[in-house]
Amino acid sequence: MTEPILQAGQKAALLAEALPYIRRFHGKTVVVKYGGNAMTDESLKRGFAHDVVLLKLVGINVVVVHGGGPQIEELLSRVGKKGEFIQGMRVTDSETMDIVEMVLAGKVNKEIVELINHAGGKAVGLTGQDGGLIRASKLMINSTDLPDQLLDIGHVGQIEQVDPDIVYSLLKSGFIPVIAPIGSGNQGETYNINADLVAGKIAEILKAEKLVLMTNTPGVLDRKGQLITGLTAKEVDTLFADGTLSGGMLPKISSALDAAKAGVHSVHIIDGRVPNSLLLEILTAEGVGTMIRSH
Amino acid sequence: MTEPILQAGQKAALLAEALPYIRRFHGKTVVVKYGGNAMTDESLKRGFAHDVVLLKLVGINVVVVHGGGPQIEELLSRVGKKGEFIQGMRVTDSETMDIVEMVLAGKVNKEIVELINHAGGKAVGLTGQDGGLIRASKLMINSTDLPDQLLDIGHVGQIEQVDPDIVYSLLKSGFIPVIAPIGSGNQGETYNINADLVAGKIAEILKAEKLVLMTNTPGVLDRKGQLITGLTAKEVDTLFADGTLSGGMLPKISSALDAAKAGVHSVHIIDGRVPNSLLLEILTAEGVGTMIRSH
Amino acid sequence: MTEPILQAGQKAALLAEALPYIRRFHGKTVVVKYGGNAMTDESLKRGFAHDVVLLKLVGINVVVVHGGGPQIEELLSRVGKKGEFIQGMRVTDSETMDIVEMVLAGKVNKEIVELINHAGGKAVGLTGQDGGLIRASKLMINSTDLPDQLLDIGHVGQIEQVDPDIVYSLLKSGFIPVIAPIGSGNQGETYNINADLVAGKIAEILKAEKLVLMTNTPGVLDRKGQLITGLTAKEVDTLFADGTLSGGMLPKISSALDAAKAGVHSVHIIDGRVPNSLLLEILTAEGVGTMIRSH
Amino acid sequence: MTEPILQAGQKAALLAEALPYIRRFHGKTVVVKYGGNAMTDESLKRGFAHDVVLLKLVGINVVVVHGGGPQIEELLSRVGKKGEFIQGMRVTDSETMDIVEMVLAGKVNKEIVELINHAGGKAVGLTGQDGGLIRASKLMINSTDLPDQLLDIGHVGQIEQVDPDIVYSLLKSGFIPVIAPIGSGNQGETYNINADLVAGKIAEILKAEKLVLMTNTPGVLDRKGQLITGLTAKEVDTLFADGTLSGGMLPKISSALDAAKAGVHSVHIIDGRVPNSLLLEILTAEGVGTMIRSH
Amino acid sequence: MTEPILQAGQKAALLAEALPYIRRFHGKTVVVKYGGNAMTDESLKRGFAHDVVLLKLVGINVVVVHGGGPQIEELLSRVGKKGEFIQGMRVTDSETMDIVEMVLAGKVNKEIVELINHAGGKAVGLTGQDGGLIRASKLMINSTDLPDQLLDIGHVGQIEQVDPDIVYSLLKSGFIPVIAPIGSGNQGETYNINADLVAGKIAEILKAEKLVLMTNTPGVLDRKGQLITGLTAKEVDTLFADGTLSGGMLPKISSALDAAKAGVHSVHIIDGRVPNSLLLEILTAEGVGTMIRSH
Amino acid sequence: MTEPILQAGQKAALLAEALPYIRRFHGKTVVVKYGGNAMTDESLKRGFAHDVVLLKLVGINVVVVHGGGPQIEELLSRVGKKGEFIQGMRVTDSETMDIVEMVLAGKVNKEIVELINHAGGKAVGLTGQDGGLIRASKLMINSTDLPDQLLDIGHVGQIEQVDPDIVYSLLKSGFIPVIAPIGSGNQGETYNINADLVAGKIAEILKAEKLVLMTNTPGVLDRKGQLITGLTAKEVDTLFADGTLSGGMLPKISSALDAAKAGVHSVHIIDGRVPNSLLLEILTAEGVGTMIRSH
Repeated sequence: MTEPILQAGQKAALLAEALPYIRRFHGKTVVVKYGGNAMTDESLKRGFAHDVVLLKLVGINVVVVHGGGPQIEELLSRVGKKGEFIQGMRVTDSETMDIVEMVLAGKVNKEIVELINHAGGKAVGLTGQDGGLIRASKLMINSTDLPDQLLDIGHVGQIEQVDPDIVYSLLKSGFIPVIAPIGSGNQGETYNINADLVAGKIAEILKAEKLVLMTNTPGVLDRKGQLITGLTAKEVDTLFADGTLSGGMLPKISSALDAAKAGVHSVHIIDGRVPNSLLLEILTAEGVGTMIRSH
Repeated sequence: MTEPILQAGQKAALLAEALPYIRRFHGKTVVVKYGGNAMTDESLKRGFAHDVVLLKLVGINVVVVHGGGPQIEELLSRVGKKGEFIQGMRVTDSETMDIVEMVLAGKVNKEIVELINHAGGKAVGLTGQDGGLIRASKLMINSTDLPDQLLDIGHVGQIEQVDPDIVYSLLKSGFIPVIAPIGSGNQGETYNINADLVAGKIAEILKAEKLVLMTNTPGVLDRKGQLITGLTAKEVDTLFADGTLSGGMLPKISSALDAAKAGVHSVHIIDGRVPNSLLLEILTAEGVGTMIRSH
Repeated sequence: MTEPILQAGQKAALLAEALPYIRRFHGKTVVVKYGGNAMTDESLKRGFAHDVVLLKLVGINVVVVHGGGPQIEELLSRVGKKGEFIQGMRVTDSETMDIVEMVLAGKVNKEIVELINHAGGKAVGLTGQDGGLIRASKLMINSTDLPDQLLDIGHVGQIEQVDPDIVYSLLKSGFIPVIAPIGSGNQGETYNINADLVAGKIAEILKAEKLVLMTNTPGVLDRKGQLITGLTAKEVDTLFADGTLSGGMLPKISSALDAAKAGVHSVHIIDGRVPNSLLLEILTAEGVGTMIRSH
Repeated sequence: MTEPILQAGQKAALLAEALPYIRRFHGKTVVVKYGGNAMTDESLKRGFAHDVVLLKLVGINVVVVHGGGPQIEELLSRVGKKGEFIQGMRVTDSETMDIVEMVLAGKVNKEIVELINHAGGKAVGLTGQDGGLIRASKLMINSTDLPDQLLDIGHVGQIEQVDPDIVYSLLKSGFIPVIAPIGSGNQGETYNINADLVAGKIAEILKAEKLVLMTNTPGVLDRKGQLITGLTAKEVDTLFADGTLSGGMLPKISSALDAAKAGVHSVHIIDGRVPNSLLLEILTAEGVGTMIRSH
Repeated sequence: MTEPILQAGQKAALLAEALPYIRRFHGKTVVVKYGGNAMTDESLKRGFAHDVVLLKLVGINVVVVHGGGPQIEELLSRVGKKGEFIQGMRVTDSETMDIVEMVLAGKVNKEIVELINHAGGKAVGLTGQDGGLIRASKLMINSTDLPDQLLDIGHVGQIEQVDPDIVYSLLKSGFIPVIAPIGSGNQGETYNINADLVAGKIAEILKAEKLVLMTNTPGVLDRKGQLITGLTAKEVDTLFADGTLSGGMLPKISSALDAAKAGVHSVHIIDGRVPNSLLLEILTAEGVGTMIRSH
Repeated sequence: MTEPILQAGQKAALLAEALPYIRRFHGKTVVVKYGGNAMTDESLKRGFAHDVVLLKLVGINVVVVHGGGPQIEELLSRVGKKGEFIQGMRVTDSETMDIVEMVLAGKVNKEIVELINHAGGKAVGLTGQDGGLIRASKLMINSTDLPDQLLDIGHVGQIEQVDPDIVYSLLKSGFIPVIAPIGSGNQGETYNINADLVAGKIAEILKAEKLVLMTNTPGVLDRKGQLITGLTAKEVDTLFADGTLSGGMLPKISSALDAAKAGVHSVHIIDGRVPNSLLLEILTAEGVGTMIRSH
């Protein structure tokens, strides 16, 4: 009988280790940008859903924001449309936007809702249209060829205003909001918005304690490929300046920085490929990935 | 100046005529099955959205349930799938179900939400997955050829259980729930459910005062093609028996009858092609279409 | 069948026209000074009561303030007292004040309460004494003969303080407060106060959206007898200066102006002889009478 | 210094004596029928108002119901109407009813409201019309001359229904309801109702702990003129039977008995001529008058 | 019958006299330092408990703070420890502190709770540890012999912080908090704190209307031994300066003055040997003892 | 970096394992009888406090009931009293009861409160006197020598009634009630009650989900000394009958059985010597000790 009791003792000790973290985040809001492998690998998906439900049960208000690039690509190709990208952003004509909406709101969003509900939570899917959550406008981008010229890439949007009423209302009733990054324009037209930006803005408006961005890398790496575990705004500026940061990580860090500066206590870029990385990040001493703070 | 004032007087008189109806339905719940032309004609669409917002403002808890047949057909044909129907029900393999969900939850539902919000309401779109609203199971249908044999037509579902928490929560916070007829099975699989049935069941669970089914006919017609303005359960049985009722009206009336028997005070099959038919039905003495009561 | 449906369509369109107004005033407070013909003509009375109940049902907090000149005159003459007036104000000895109170609080107020309740509302009558609503003091008026001399005209009062608790409490419970313009002095004595002034002050204290003064004229008329539909504070000053405004309209406009300056969004002097004029003013595009705003 | 302290000690002891009574009635409802001398003598009036406010402050929900016979008589005579009585009830034509309403609702009711407010309470006057409190119908009385013939004595009413919402709403907000015994008929006509009956019915509907009827006698007297301090329903029946009870006391006791049987814990007929009799009855061991219980 | 009624009349008059005081203190908070004879004499104890319950029932939030010197002395002597005092404060080693806690929290506190409950209240005993009410630190005192040297007298504490949540929570639920003057240090160690200081600080934090310190003297006496009934901060300074105040009264007055300056409306040093002195002080015109105000 | 991440992964997996348990017990009440070694060993004490706070944070309403035998013994011997026991129960004269109360309420209870607060909770100590929680009467026991003779062993009590108001009030405000097993008699006298019985009765009254009794044994052992992990009421009866159960375990099991029969879902007798045994029992698959259910 000794053996199993010892094991049990270890379990209890590990649970007990979570106490100070639960205490600190109890009643606080955590916004999670869900994406990458964690959204495609079956085992990681289930792990994510369990993490979300557990965080909810220990008193944390979890809000999930998701993207959906690969799934969009798939349907586009099925209906015979080829994606065109300018500066990493998809040129989105009305037909493409229809596909984007259907995939994000009708497929990806509902799968996440189902996943969380299956794990015992009560998730409710939203887009920026529901309850007037996100008002957006067309994002014009600077031409890299012709200075001072703006390019119209269609239904790609930027956030104008967030009305968090529906999110508060759901949180108050114990639901877990799952948000697809679609905004609604003044004329009822819709816009596809970068999910990292949506997560950052929602975190800011909700005065979230944490913003967690799940990626497919271990976090921010230095020039030697080593993980940087913590960064201040100032240090980020240096890394931008010396070219350490580049590629897909650029917008992610920029969005993280904005949220941190706007009052979100800490922003984390974590490795979604690590099982239960969300739980690890929030409830244990083992940080995963890179933490960014304003100072 | 006399002329406009006279006009004004008429307007006021008409507004005043609505008083007893507003009084009677204030604080009550009305479930509306939205479909047909009212969902495709631009002017009728706007009229419907205005009606919903006005009913909400005069204190009625409006819940919208919608279908989406034509839009589904369109996307299916774009991805090269041909619809197959057995006994009027679409055979729905997994691939088709994906399309159904994307169209209903990602396109039709969001358009209605946007429409209502543009008219000044605060709509929130739901499917049966959100908040665990509708639990469903596979509907097996009787073969017409081989008695006692059940046919499997895929992801076509029947309602097992309704958990109205999310609907109550939204109504309490002043939102207008807009529900796509998709249910969630025990294994996380999804089902396409007849929207009339969903509307009827939701009305029943919410103890609604009224269930309004919007169609493309003037209502229930007798053998001479004349509109029947009122029917009791008993009279419906007679019409079934003598073959007056047939075709697409059959399931609609059956669903209306179930709701009426389960306690919904009155069920109305109204002509969605008449502008503002919803308002007319609820707030004026002019009934539109056929009213069905249990007795 | 065509004919009635067409009529119905018109009705619905008219109802729908009210939507933006209902939306704008939902949850707001409207104070109505009720008086003149609208208070004596049987048909206008019923129309007024219906209007009040309908406004209440569409979510507007209606507060009614009333006068009662003619009815007071009648009882005074029955008990053999002759009314004496100085500068348009009734000289009010204690015996007269008793009659004034009995008529206003015991007869006129209760008739209005009954009228509204009969139309389906839940009205509750108040005077300034109930719940300590209006504290008043004696109004001394300047002699027109002897400068610097003040005349005592008895129990005619001016408002010292308003404690709106009882009004808020009734509104919160869904009742419609109906207020007789009587104030209570420091020694428990009572004062008759001009009903327009009471309505204006109550509107100001309640931060009302609208103050509506019902009269027996089409509104403010210019020198040619034409209705002026809109006036700013500045324009009113000009009209005062050039003598366009005079007679009974003077105190009414003065009171309207005070309310507008104190934050009531708009004040309306409307023609109570037009049926349902209250509804017309608030819920349709047809303004009736003159609107006064601070700028 | 000894002397005043001794006095003080006595005071404190007397206050302390009230403790068990305050404890017992805290949060309970007491309905008081206010009338007779206590309503005309200046010093008794002030004493009554102080008692009511003190009871309110120690946590008792006080509801006052009042009559007003003498004041009605006075105005009737001033307008030249002579009161006619059948079986002790005033024959009340419409003109008389107008006078009754004006006196009760416009004069007596407001005086009591003012009196209580002056003592530091927050009273609100009501008639049975306010908030639809009392629905009444015409009381037909049996002719003493012709058996089986009913006499119509005009606007004298009996209670059909009580809707206590407005009373609960006022009590909940800390106000003291003061009720004039006027009921409202189906056609909007009004009825004068015996105040003892109104008090009894209100006590019953509110499930009051106590009903206190203030009179101008020491209470119920036996044949020798001695005060009877307590009576059960059974004992009352005996007194009725042997003719001990008669005259004006009859309806009072009958009303008391009805209330007691309907669940009011105790009914008290007390001597309103004794200063602070209300306080004495409720907060001290010194009962005043006669207590009636169901058994 | 005349005789008892007369007596009753006097009682009622005395009760009525309390009205203005009840009105003034209704809903306000009164902190009482309970100690001295009032805590040892059986009859005074019962009187105190009745006073507390009566004050609670008339709507006053009573909070009791108590000391316990004599009882501590008794147990210390039983376990063979001799009390040592420096500058009037008990030198408190850990063993002594254990005794102090056991007596204050386990004996004296519970006796007061029981006493109040027996009188019909619902008291709940607390120490500064419960709900983290009082955080304290070690009080170092100045040596009288060696200037600039601080003496360590063990577990005698000073208040660092008060977290009134538990007190508010109990008051809101209708309970009467009874507080033993023990504070909790950063390392979980406990401190004995002067009960007058605790009462003063609690009164300040709760923004109490009154602080009442019960003593064994008639109040503050002047040089001729006459009671001073009222003192301002300035007058207290004079009395300090001229040496009128001295001995045990010094810290009491100092604490009273601090509370008065920090916003407690009035502080009273009253004679606990007078029966029901608490009631007398709060609910009658007979002040007992000395009242101290900031100005 | 691989190594720590692997460790982290294990941690996360273990945390995730707690999910179903947290889900099941969220919002439920767990009563813990705290005693034995877990109350004396410093490390076990801290572990217990951490467990309680963690359970509270994951949404479980924890109520602690404690004993205190050894500490009582110690003080008794210091004051020169020798404990006398009859049938395992301490003969408790008034002087002894004083000691018992001081130790339980003034020392043990406050230490537990401090311990939990130090771990980040907000504990509040209670005895059965606070808020009238436990009403008790004297327990008379049967003489083993003389049949039919009852022995009086002083202030040893049995529970007559539990008024859980104070416990509900504290739980609702987020506090953790810590209860000393002292009850209050009709005359204000106090009784020492067996802590297992108090825990069982409190669990029953609160309709607790679980009752956990912490002991110094691995649980219930069979005749060969092997742990029995689960028992039904029926099986307990058999063990009683065949003499397997005896000694100190008898009353514990009897109390467990009563609670189980009265509706507590499961009762656990666990080994308090195992670190974090409380957490293990409630949040992991590793049961510790013996579970008793009604069937």
